[in-house]
Amino acid sequence: MSPDSETPSSGNVPEEGDSSQPISKKAAKKEAAKQEKERRRREIEAAAASLSVEEEGPLSKNYGNVPLSELQSVDNPGAGNWSEGVHGKNWTEVGALTESLKDQEVLIRGRVHTSRPVSGKLAFLVVRERGSTVQCVVTVKPDSVSKQMVKFVNALSKESIVDIIGVVSVPGVAIKGTTQQVEVQVKKIYCVSRAASLPINIEDASRSEAEIEKALKEGEQLVRVNQDTRLNNRIIDIRTPANQAIFRIQSQVGNIFREFLLSEGFVEIHTPKLIAGSSEGGSAIFKLDYKGQPACLAQSPQLHKQMSICGDFGRVFETGPVFRAEDSYTHRHLCEFTGLDAEMEIKKHYSEVMDIVDRLFVTIFDGLNQRCKKELEAVGKQYPFEPLKYKPKTLRLTFEEGIQMLKNAGVEIDPLGDLNTEAERKLGQLVLEKYGTEFYILNRYPLAVRPFYTMPCHDNPLYSNSFDVFIRGEEIISGAQRVHIPEFLEERAQACGIDVKTISTYIDSFRYGAPPHGGFGVGLERVVMLFCGLNNIRKTSLYPRDPLRIAP
Amino acid sequence: MSPDSETPSSGNVPEEGDSSQPISKKAAKKEAAKQEKERRRREIEAAAASLSVEEEGPLSKNYGNVPLSELQSVDNPGAGNWSEGVHGKNWTEVGALTESLKDQEVLIRGRVHTSRPVSGKLAFLVVRERGSTVQCVVTVKPDSVSKQMVKFVNALSKESIVDIIGVVSVPGVAIKGTTQQVEVQVKKIYCVSRAASLPINIEDASRSEAEIEKALKEGEQLVRVNQDTRLNNRIIDIRTPANQAIFRIQSQVGNIFREFLLSEGFVEIHTPKLIAGSSEGGSAIFKLDYKGQPACLAQSPQLHKQMSICGDFGRVFETGPVFRAEDSYTHRHLCEFTGLDAEMEIKKHYSEVMDIVDRLFVTIFDGLNQRCKKELEAVGKQYPFEPLKYKPKTLRLTFEEGIQMLKNAGVEIDPLGDLNTEAERKLGQLVLEKYGTEFYILNRYPLAVRPFYTMPCHDNPLYSNSFDVFIRGEEIISGAQRVHIPEFLEERAQACGIDVKTISTYIDSFRYGAPPHGGFGVGLERVVMLFCGLNNIRKTSLYPRDPLRIAP
Repeated sequence: MSPDSETPSSGNVPEEGDSSQPISKKAAKKEAAKQEKERRRREIEAAAASLSVEEEGPLSKNYGNVPLSELQSVDNPGAGNWSEGVHGKNWTEVGALTESLKDQEVLIRGRVHTSRPVSGKLAFLVVRERGSTVQCVVTVKPDSVSKQMVKFVNALSKESIVDIIGVVSVPGVAIKGTTQQVEVQVKKIYCVSRAASLPINIEDASRSEAEIEKALKEGEQLVRVNQDTRLNNRIIDIRTPANQAIFRIQSQVGNIFREFLLSEGFVEIHTPKLIAGSSEGGSAIFKLDYKGQPACLAQSPQLHKQMSICGDFGRVFETGPVFRAEDSYTHRHLCEFTGLDAEMEIKKHYSEVMDIVDRLFVTIFDGLNQRCKKELEAVGKQYPFEPLKYKPKTLRLTFEEGIQMLKNAGVEIDPLGDLNTEAERKLGQLVLEKYGTEFYILNRYPLAVRPFYTMPCHDNPLYSNSFDVFIRGEEIISGAQRVHIPEFLEERAQACGIDVKTISTYIDSFRYGAPPHGGFGVGLERVVMLFCGLNNIRKTSLYPRDPLRIAP
Repeated sequence: MSPDSETPSSGNVPEEGDSSQPISKKAAKKEAAKQEKERRRREIEAAAASLSVEEEGPLSKNYGNVPLSELQSVDNPGAGNWSEGVHGKNWTEVGALTESLKDQEVLIRGRVHTSRPVSGKLAFLVVRERGSTVQCVVTVKPDSVSKQMVKFVNALSKESIVDIIGVVSVPGVAIKGTTQQVEVQVKKIYCVSRAASLPINIEDASRSEAEIEKALKEGEQLVRVNQDTRLNNRIIDIRTPANQAIFRIQSQVGNIFREFLLSEGFVEIHTPKLIAGSSEGGSAIFKLDYKGQPACLAQSPQLHKQMSICGDFGRVFETGPVFRAEDSYTHRHLCEFTGLDAEMEIKKHYSEVMDIVDRLFVTIFDGLNQRCKKELEAVGKQYPFEPLKYKPKTLRLTFEEGIQMLKNAGVEIDPLGDLNTEAERKLGQLVLEKYGTEFYILNRYPLAVRPFYTMPCHDNPLYSNSFDVFIRGEEIISGAQRVHIPEFLEERAQACGIDVKTISTYIDSFRYGAPPHGGFGVGLERVVMLFCGLNNIRKTSLYPRDPLRIAP
């Protein structure tokens, strides 16, 4: 039976606080608060009521809370109603519920996304598993569903976890409020874990800016969940379809990064994050006591990945946490992020490093577009973005060419200084207009704006064998050839005002034969942020750490 | 031309300090020291001499030190001799030099492993790239090799990096001292990077105990490089064939771990290592100041991986650093290691977690045996070991069964206490004898010896839904079902004497609907150590951190 025959609005899951009356902003806020209060009261009442739902008879076996003892025990149908109900059955994922399963009995586990009591004999329940949702129909039937069972269902709090046994049906019209275009006619339902009253609602947290603004134009004030509230309640916030998708995309970026590099003969290494001393990089380091010795957290695996090249691994990479104690309060800085680092021997020229970066990122982008279609859609639904424009062979410009493009566009920049954020954005725009790509490499940076260990250019010591890579006008990768000759490295350090004694371990690494080499580093969170056109790096860090946040 | 026609010992690369005279231990030590001193003197002299090797004429282009300017520049044949020599040529890896390349000209890059002057007109050079070595012959030829070039080759210090252009030849007899069974007849040789006098020799660091003892019986004292000397000079130490192999095996373990879990629907996550407060786990934590707040380094991703399950990721895993400030000076403890962690929803029973562990590790072992044949051989050459005995379906015993086996063998153990190292070893031996496997799961551990968040057994609250996994008699994996009901978790924490207020963030994570779940954690370094039967975890950590070591 489809609810379509019951009510014209069926198939559409009503939004929390849905209203068609245009009202003032203040009134809307007040109304929202009132509704929220009311909602919580109802939930608490319902939870209490559910405890008193007791009945005798055979139908009482078809629903109820699963006692802990059953969840602890081995698969034993004698242990209780739930155990008997699920015994011998396989779970079907909500995302796998399609027309091909029509009339088949399925067992699903998911959360109560929304519930809608229609009458004492009928209730609709939208069940969500990860990003997917399905409408479940609970209607009184003499052989399976009692009135008490409908009451039990109506009393389930949002986000509670339920196991449902039911039959797949296909309604005559499209279902607008769920991802799955089938319904489940419920025969049995058990609550595995009951949720307390929620600090934020999934529907609120899943809403796009456009929806909120559209509603506002129509006089309706929908709840907007701000960034801090989201992060304070991260375990609820990450249940939204967009967040489920973002971290699945992130997982794939890391996966393709490694797949590609392993196929190119790179070896994965794990370098220590605990570093002796506290001289590594000035003030932006986290210091700690290591068994009575001063120590700090690595700001990058630079030293150890270069040591690994001197140790003959040829080509190495690492994915691991990187720590920066900087007081940066921007949309793109974190105090802890996931670094994707690589280092490799150079045979002839540092363009070999750029070749790897080029092919690696084109492989990542292609891979995401192929493997994460559903996830990219889910992100775009809440945070609309244009697919990244990139070329099969990545555009390379020299820093000088970049400066010239800016100059031609009327932007005057110090030709031997660094680009500021504004200039980077402008150049990104010019490159997009001229070359039709939002992903490009800018190389031969001025030597003065790079670390002391960067190899100068052969033909002009004011420039260096280094590069940055940009996505959508933001710097995302830094790379370079390194100075591998210890005497020259000392000279360069001194020229940069660094006390050579403080970096003797580093310099000594190159004394026993060091191959020419170079490498690069990328922040995983930035790759995901910029590929998906997101506006804040906190959206792509599961539990972000910034100068004001070290929880949860 | 093969050196076989020149000298009967050809094909064998003589060991440093080779001697056939039986001498006393003390005399041998003295002699070794003298030889070492002499060797260094010779190296320094040779290095100086090489600078004065200058000649005119066309043959002078075929050798020499590569100036920095050439290594900085683009691929430009006009830049100098080296640039002209390598221009348009592809490198062949030393490990790829086989008979199939006979009579072909190749370009190789490698280190001077050993060099042996025969006369002013002939020299042998063993060149090493990663774990592979090849003998190169430099003999005066009117069209390519001058006497000065032979002199230049003889002056190359060990571990210097050279580019060689030469022709592959196949000698009539087996070459014992190198991995490759061909020779390279050198036409051009350039030094890319010159090594200073070495604190340890690769041959010394590559030697097995057996070789040292065999030589000793024959009256010869070979240098034994101890663990601390190795670790102090790690960038040289990791160049040995065994170490090159160990870290390539480690890279594969991580790779197969992820491949398998991704294929099973797990999502890779990255959780923060910086944790608020300092209450996480008593004294064994590294504390630090986080922007004025007390903080510490995560001892495991336990909290955040469970939060991710509550956040609907279903199945998650992480590979990342784990920090333990314990004062453990054993062969199996580090202050920083690489944790392989996984957490998953449980549908019916915690055996689902053991199923994953079972198939995951069998896949890893099978994968290593298939993909790392050469590497496992290289490790075994220096550190002989028997291949790990494991079954396609992993043996599972209950803790009670384990205790009974020990009891039957006369070992009395507290049936509700933990196993000590000795008992674990003994049980491993008994299991091997009875079941023929060195890899097994022991489950249903006593509740009292597991963390408070471990789910008790349904049928006996003295035991728990938990397990340890053993390789070669050593514990390697810990796993369990977790308590997902906040009220029960509070009860368990209190029963374990933990102040519930200090873990409120953790407990609150389960208030908004938490699926039954479980997981496990493994130390990457231990997997490699035990699979290869190594005796110390410092051998499988690239730059180990222990209570006495935070460098290099």
